[in-house]
Amino acid sequence: MPHDELKQRVLRANVALVEAGLVTLTWGNASAADRDAGVIAIKPSGIPYDQLGVENIVVLSLPSGGAIDGRAKPSSDTPTHLHLYNAFPGIGGIVHTHSLHATAFAQAGRELPCLGTTHADHFHGAVPVTRPLTEAEVAKDYERNTGRVIQGCFESLRLDPMDVPAVLAHGHGPFAWGKTIEDAVENAIALEFCAQAASLTWQLDPPACTIPQFLLDKHFLRKHGPSAYYGQR
Amino acid sequence: MPHDELKQRVLRANVALVEAGLVTLTWGNASAADRDAGVIAIKPSGIPYDQLGVENIVVLSLPSGGAIDGRAKPSSDTPTHLHLYNAFPGIGGIVHTHSLHATAFAQAGRELPCLGTTHADHFHGAVPVTRPLTEAEVAKDYERNTGRVIQGCFESLRLDPMDVPAVLAHGHGPFAWGKTIEDAVENAIALEFCAQAASLTWQLDPPACTIPQFLLDKHFLRKHGPSAYYGQR
Amino acid sequence: MPHDELKQRVLRANVALVEAGLVTLTWGNASAADRDAGVIAIKPSGIPYDQLGVENIVVLSLPSGGAIDGRAKPSSDTPTHLHLYNAFPGIGGIVHTHSLHATAFAQAGRELPCLGTTHADHFHGAVPVTRPLTEAEVAKDYERNTGRVIQGCFESLRLDPMDVPAVLAHGHGPFAWGKTIEDAVENAIALEFCAQAASLTWQLDPPACTIPQFLLDKHFLRKHGPSAYYGQR
Amino acid sequence: MPHDELKQRVLRANVALVEAGLVTLTWGNASAADRDAGVIAIKPSGIPYDQLGVENIVVLSLPSGGAIDGRAKPSSDTPTHLHLYNAFPGIGGIVHTHSLHATAFAQAGRELPCLGTTHADHFHGAVPVTRPLTEAEVAKDYERNTGRVIQGCFESLRLDPMDVPAVLAHGHGPFAWGKTIEDAVENAIALEFCAQAASLTWQLDPPACTIPQFLLDKHFLRKHGPSAYYGQR
Repeated sequence: MPHDELKQRVLRANVALVEAGLVTLTWGNASAADRDAGVIAIKPSGIPYDQLGVENIVVLSLPSGGAIDGRAKPSSDTPTHLHLYNAFPGIGGIVHTHSLHATAFAQAGRELPCLGTTHADHFHGAVPVTRPLTEAEVAKDYERNTGRVIQGCFESLRLDPMDVPAVLAHGHGPFAWGKTIEDAVENAIALEFCAQAASLTWQLDPPACTIPQFLLDKHFLRKHGPSAYYGQR
Repeated sequence: MPHDELKQRVLRANVALVEAGLVTLTWGNASAADRDAGVIAIKPSGIPYDQLGVENIVVLSLPSGGAIDGRAKPSSDTPTHLHLYNAFPGIGGIVHTHSLHATAFAQAGRELPCLGTTHADHFHGAVPVTRPLTEAEVAKDYERNTGRVIQGCFESLRLDPMDVPAVLAHGHGPFAWGKTIEDAVENAIALEFCAQAASLTWQLDPPACTIPQFLLDKHFLRKHGPSAYYGQR
Repeated sequence: MPHDELKQRVLRANVALVEAGLVTLTWGNASAADRDAGVIAIKPSGIPYDQLGVENIVVLSLPSGGAIDGRAKPSSDTPTHLHLYNAFPGIGGIVHTHSLHATAFAQAGRELPCLGTTHADHFHGAVPVTRPLTEAEVAKDYERNTGRVIQGCFESLRLDPMDVPAVLAHGHGPFAWGKTIEDAVENAIALEFCAQAASLTWQLDPPACTIPQFLLDKHFLRKHGPSAYYGQR
Repeated sequence: MPHDELKQRVLRANVALVEAGLVTLTWGNASAADRDAGVIAIKPSGIPYDQLGVENIVVLSLPSGGAIDGRAKPSSDTPTHLHLYNAFPGIGGIVHTHSLHATAFAQAGRELPCLGTTHADHFHGAVPVTRPLTEAEVAKDYERNTGRVIQGCFESLRLDPMDVPAVLAHGHGPFAWGKTIEDAVENAIALEFCAQAASLTWQLDPPACTIPQFLLDKHFLRKHGPSAYYGQR
């Protein structure tokens, strides 16, 4: 079957989000790109996780999103995923959830600053929150505009999406991504943990702020880039 | 067996509430109506979940609640369920739980405003809290009066129970409903999530308030009504 | 085997506490009395739950606590249990845990007021917190003095231990009891839920206080005493 | 196989941390020393827990950390472990996690005072927080310097690491230890519980402070040292 491995990975990632406790009901979706083949695979819309199988993962073309494979309707957030794959050429997987604590940050309209080394291990600085969408942006092409606003957020902050592989969509919830869909899942899990830890840290110390830049650099670069020495490489 | 499918669905819904973590001990009950047959099926009173089977689901007539089938005593909250089925003709299932965060809102006597799109996906505006019952209302026909006060709450706020399929009973806990018992369970799960997310949002941003009406409409109508485009329809 | 059924029930209750999430490591113990036989059975001291079997449940005489059956050392809190069985003749089971939220109340030295009907379903009023033990009370007969201070707390507040079947030991954690050990477990679960719900309620509404007496009476008496109509009786 | 039992215990301890909910993703590591053999065994770096087996546990020499057995790269935190084994001769096991509530204390830069008897059962006084590392300490020998700063913390506070078998590394997370790796795991679990309980206690009573010294002594010495009477000894 064409794209079978890609669909298997998308299936596993969607299940991993549920197992990690990031998804309630059907509020989540994960996709992966095969840039050589010019396709993405994504979860179908609104199907309960216990009915999710490789056979209802949807395959679409990049960049336009034309139907390639699969009879189910793709996730209603597909235009956001497509826009991000086109805007951020380095990413190979995207995860969207309504995970509880990251959603609380998105609802509060607050960025998530780096309060400790766990955050620095995954995100090279604060995870930003987008501006709210305007009424016109919501009325037409809502899901694609969500992608545009995320792209605009990273451009205006001059952030590299590979350095900070996540964002909080204002009033909505988190998106995370990575070189692969497996990295995107890991970043979504790390984001939820860091959001909860930040809330708890502020309960203990309301003015707690970001760790020093040298410690942030140390931890991020220990795990990422040419000098990384974490893991079995 | 007559009403066997209805009883099966009521059994499954009651078990789903436990699996979703909404029910501690025996504090919860779910019912479903078969309006064509003029009956409802409901959980028995105070039976531990591991002893719950189709054989002790109770069937009662609508609108009066006369015994039709089942030897067990129905849930002590049955008069509330009956009243709501009679007051809200569009609903086919009702769920009552003492889920933790929704109960905290009920105990605090606060409505749950719409702070994000997760809420808007399920509730077209704030989930209201009822007024407290009077001493006379508690002394006599307590459970039916709980239903009356819920009905009065929706009337005085001019709310359509299909637009906002849940309520917080003051000092007590949540009731949720839907076109079907499966929808009611889903709304109970969404309510608990949104209650917890709202508490966490206010910790991060105490004055956080409702999202704009156009965003609320967009998300509710994306999932409900004639223009819905979420899911496999 | 003599007292075999009693030991089985004590074993099951101790396991139920772990399954309900009330016990971390070995921080908990449950006991049951057979007043006709003049004995209690209790968990052994510091044995991991996965090594707990009927064979290491300890049987002791009432009122003195003399060894009757079992080679293991009984729980270090045994003198507290014995004192409470002697002081409160109506109780047949006792549970002690360090469950998280009840322990937070004990550490804060705050009683748990009745903020909603869930509380009223199990406790006919606030669950009291004891006074702290004095240095002399800690130095000698510490565990028995814990029992004495609990008894004194109920006497000075003129509380019937069957109406309010739990207490918060100051700086320590909760004890719960009941007519049977099964009731004691249920009360310990209800106590933990109500403690967490109260904390969350106060986050939403800091001055939230007790529900009206008529509602408290209604719910408690719906489940307890001659006019109870909850459950299959 | 040489050191096979040691490796088995290290494997079991690492798995126990996951089962206790102290570890997210791969953020944790446990090691054990065999001081007679002059070796430690430690978790490999960045290997997912479901791929962890005795065959990839790494054995290193004490005090220098030379490779003895195992093809995988040891945990990136190995220099911290080695430093602590050399600095604290009484310890036989070390556990490092990013457990949520202890991490929040570390991020807030707050020590964890003894607010109740649960804490006193495991830690004979407050669990200290280290000073932050300087830029020079982070730039070179970061992980060994983490160990040096922990040692300095205990020396400047004149704390015996066997009395207070844990520390909060500033801006990072907790380390716990014990006579054995099994004790270290238990102390890590107790630390996380006490951190969460302390946060909750302060929500209920912001000025809550430490329990009296006589009660702290009573509980710690009930479980530790020559007069201990808890457990089956």
